Amino acid sequence: MPTYKAPVDDVMFLLGDVFHIERFNNLPGFADATPDLVEAVLAEAAKFCQDVLAPLNRVGDKEGCHRHEDGSVATPTGFKQAYKGFTEGGWIGLSAPAEFGGQGLPMALAQSISEFLCSANMAFAMYPGLTQGAIAALLAHASQEQKERYVPKLVTGQWAGTMNLTEPQCGTDLGLVRTRASPQPDGSYKISGTKIFISAGEHDLAENIIHLVLARIEGAPAGTKGLSLFIVPKVLPGAGDALGTKNAVSCGSIEEKMGIHGNSTCVMNYDGATGWLMGEANRGLQAMFTMMNEARLGVGVQGLALSEVAYQNAAAYAKERLAGRALSGAKFPDKAADPIIVHPDVRRMLMSIRAFNEAGRALVLWTALKSDIAHRSEDAKERQAADDHLGLMTPVIKGVITDQGFANTVMAQQVFGGHGYIAEHGMEQFVRDARIAMLYEGANGIQALDLVGRKLPKDGGRALQAFFGEVTAYIKERSADTAMAPYVAPLGHALGELQQATMWFLQNALGNPDNAGAGATDYMHLFGLVALGYMWCLIADAAKTATGNGAAERMTERLATGRFFMERMLPAATTHLARIKAGAASTMALPAEAF
Amino acid sequence: MPTYKAPVDDVMFLLGDVFHIERFNNLPGFADATPDLVEAVLAEAAKFCQDVLAPLNRVGDKEGCHRHEDGSVATPTGFKQAYKGFTEGGWIGLSAPAEFGGQGLPMALAQSISEFLCSANMAFAMYPGLTQGAIAALLAHASQEQKERYVPKLVTGQWAGTMNLTEPQCGTDLGLVRTRASPQPDGSYKISGTKIFISAGEHDLAENIIHLVLARIEGAPAGTKGLSLFIVPKVLPGAGDALGTKNAVSCGSIEEKMGIHGNSTCVMNYDGATGWLMGEANRGLQAMFTMMNEARLGVGVQGLALSEVAYQNAAAYAKERLAGRALSGAKFPDKAADPIIVHPDVRRMLMSIRAFNEAGRALVLWTALKSDIAHRSEDAKERQAADDHLGLMTPVIKGVITDQGFANTVMAQQVFGGHGYIAEHGMEQFVRDARIAMLYEGANGIQALDLVGRKLPKDGGRALQAFFGEVTAYIKERSADTAMAPYVAPLGHALGELQQATMWFLQNALGNPDNAGAGATDYMHLFGLVALGYMWCLIADAAKTATGNGAAERMTERLATGRFFMERMLPAATTHLARIKAGAASTMALPAEAF
Repeated sequence: MPTYKAPVDDVMFLLGDVFHIERFNNLPGFADATPDLVEAVLAEAAKFCQDVLAPLNRVGDKEGCHRHEDGSVATPTGFKQAYKGFTEGGWIGLSAPAEFGGQGLPMALAQSISEFLCSANMAFAMYPGLTQGAIAALLAHASQEQKERYVPKLVTGQWAGTMNLTEPQCGTDLGLVRTRASPQPDGSYKISGTKIFISAGEHDLAENIIHLVLARIEGAPAGTKGLSLFIVPKVLPGAGDALGTKNAVSCGSIEEKMGIHGNSTCVMNYDGATGWLMGEANRGLQAMFTMMNEARLGVGVQGLALSEVAYQNAAAYAKERLAGRALSGAKFPDKAADPIIVHPDVRRMLMSIRAFNEAGRALVLWTALKSDIAHRSEDAKERQAADDHLGLMTPVIKGVITDQGFANTVMAQQVFGGHGYIAEHGMEQFVRDARIAMLYEGANGIQALDLVGRKLPKDGGRALQAFFGEVTAYIKERSADTAMAPYVAPLGHALGELQQATMWFLQNALGNPDNAGAGATDYMHLFGLVALGYMWCLIADAAKTATGNGAAERMTERLATGRFFMERMLPAATTHLARIKAGAASTMALPAEAF
Repeated sequence: MPTYKAPVDDVMFLLGDVFHIERFNNLPGFADATPDLVEAVLAEAAKFCQDVLAPLNRVGDKEGCHRHEDGSVATPTGFKQAYKGFTEGGWIGLSAPAEFGGQGLPMALAQSISEFLCSANMAFAMYPGLTQGAIAALLAHASQEQKERYVPKLVTGQWAGTMNLTEPQCGTDLGLVRTRASPQPDGSYKISGTKIFISAGEHDLAENIIHLVLARIEGAPAGTKGLSLFIVPKVLPGAGDALGTKNAVSCGSIEEKMGIHGNSTCVMNYDGATGWLMGEANRGLQAMFTMMNEARLGVGVQGLALSEVAYQNAAAYAKERLAGRALSGAKFPDKAADPIIVHPDVRRMLMSIRAFNEAGRALVLWTALKSDIAHRSEDAKERQAADDHLGLMTPVIKGVITDQGFANTVMAQQVFGGHGYIAEHGMEQFVRDARIAMLYEGANGIQALDLVGRKLPKDGGRALQAFFGEVTAYIKERSADTAMAPYVAPLGHALGELQQATMWFLQNALGNPDNAGAGATDYMHLFGLVALGYMWCLIADAAKTATGNGAAERMTERLATGRFFMERMLPAATTHLARIKAGAASTMALPAEAF
């Protein structure tokens, strides 16, 4: 049975010592987030995740969700009670505005808690996660009346939310959406069509579910320019606080899938269901896009979360399991064998995961803070810079952290040898659960194209220049600091490779866009390595001077882990650059029929 | 529902045009293996795999195996009949000696068919695969009387075989084995103990199961030097051909595991079961080792097999699924969207898998031919050279092809987007099934240590020097061939990096063996890249001149795919070398309690 301990200390170190969250006290909600309060909130969330959600993780995997003949769906044993506890704790609205019943605390704090939740029980975490996505969408695009009607009930968790985009014939290419919306005399619409892969599409956790549905108003243009977003409640709101009649939307089936069995992935049938337009007609895709950064950031967090919990269990197993002797001589001659953590190859795996997780968590928090600034600052320039960062870093976080997070669950499973393949250890579930994060919310190839094709050239490359400028300035500033040289010098080298790759695209992709497409995934990973390397520099800086949070040994560990990253992981940048510079010729050489 | 077409043409091209199998006509069994016969055998095997086994693959995954209260185990629907067809086809004894009822054909041919079997249905293929392993063990170590008693019935498939090594407290470190063997007056032994992870440990396919069990004779030394190998039949042989009484061995439970559900992975309880010593007392581990090369080669083939079938399905999906438009402009303007195979990032994934599979298949066949020479040649020097090659290349094939084979199933699944996560497409099963090959028959970290710690220094580095010598001579010979330069030059560069890595170990691992341990996995993958690169050179050579097998387009495709390998995959060698040269310091820096 796997265990989990939420990394509260590491989050405190990152928020306080690395990112100095107190600098943002001018932002709404940040002054309330004193170190004491943040630590108390994190500790409380940790306790709930460790004690309530983690023990339900395997239950959810084994039982899955069950659809009854009437279309209702039962969640696994224990989920209902856990959801009750979760909503009573007020967790859904942690960073939602106070006017709608939320606590208005920083998104950065909410993202940390989201990591804990997903580590403990990703399938469960998705239910409130989807609701938070719906809240974000409503706050950004709904009318005041709609906000007042739906948001408070979503914040308490009395109602839940979903996002309905994908259809059988289209996922990435939403221009092919066929679901129709037929205008009614009362201003509402009748929605008809089939949506698939709807996470938390139907369940028994909340009394109502508010579906946000992408559909095409009759007569609207073809393609993405004819899409609108609709609010389609499972049960129509009645007079006052009462629920009205059941809407014409139902779960047709639950998908049989590789993992996250505790979450109901539904085929949703809309048979003339009543819905209301949210935001402007034919601007549904743009509305989706404005929420996409946060949703994708959230999926990146899932990759981190599973990498973390898999690491913790692999580390515990490596300290316990006896096999062989240390190459340098027996470490525990009184035992039948040494624990496998003495073996360098086991260390390699554990250090690789750990070095990724600590920097990945920093990258997520850094970006979540930018998201807070983008949403809450009163300074337009500051908002723009933060929004630039958010847009640029989102595909990197989503693509790189979910790719590597999955690879890390596989590596952690490998530490267990054959036992990693056996269900009761829980490692294979982490692998299966982590796999989805590379696929949904835009498959990772789409993230790479978003980065290379959209985010790099956007606004004349402003976001990229700002990032390059910041890292370059940092390297220059630290250039005389010999103690930091083992961190700063490799970062400088990798940054140079990223800049070469960028230049190569500038010179070779305009004439042949396939050159950008063929190198996009490598570019995204190269970018991720540089961003993570920069995080390690900031962590090392803070670890050298931090006195407040964490013991001295912990700081020494961070410095050693950062060294491992620089020596063992950052060199992959060279291979990514070589692949990018190879161009598209051999990638595209074969005719389609040769495959 | 996934589909499968066995790559008969590619095997014919490799055996004929690349490796010139006719050169080995002096070896027993090879003269019979005329091109016509080989093609007919491959075609027949292909048909059986495609028509009978592939349709049962998902059935086996869904149903799994069921243990009844009496300890008997039912295999999934259809497996019994398929097994009957398989045994009637004479497939189990394809390369077994004629004197025991086999056909004596080359192992290389059997390995090709093993690839087809595992692509079609790996869980099924493991049943006869384990029997083949038992046959090999008996032929190498059993007495003539034992061979005559057991081998013919294993060859027909009337009886099945298993290998029993692992126990709850030990897998890799077999010195910790506790199963005891108590000598009886009649020369037999009573075997008592618990074995776990026993593939095909109990099932309903054959009337008897011959377990080969590693155990410690009472009073034998502790550690690996006190292990002996025993023959323990499920049902004791009776007089003549009749079966006698049930032996005291039973399946205690079936493991719940990540994949290969159609194969029964059993906990086997030996309660004073009757067994007979096979080979010398206390030399059981050495006996295991002599079979290990072939067993590990077989597991490498599983990695290749799943990579191949996953590729085929991803390629088919990519040609069918419509989304977006080619970056260079719509390719099918009359359709709602272009098929996703127009996208360079999709091509990148397909080409990566394909470039690996074609060279991986070559590496397997090259090595399987060496295995044939090692077993069948009358020339002692030739046998030794072949055995050197087999020992050196086995950990590379097992470790690299299963690591990358698994990664390739994940990549193929990625081509499907969210649909890859859904069970009915079958892609997620390939991922789950492929995962075991990295773990069993020596986890891949053990393969890396075997390569670096045992195979490199063995006999003064004779095997490694022979490999380096062959590749160096090849490169030199082709140095003036400008048409081959795009293949030969990158190979030369990567070989240089591998030689640098080897030299680095020589200089840095004697004083600190952790430097070898920390770099072992990277060395194994670097070695694999060079070996695969060499295979691509041989393939390209043959493709340039081959006229016989396959159309001209197919040869052009091979040349383009080889280019992709050289430009896009081989550069990873540089990163592996950088990691190796970083040494063990940062890997081993933290105290165990810091994890």
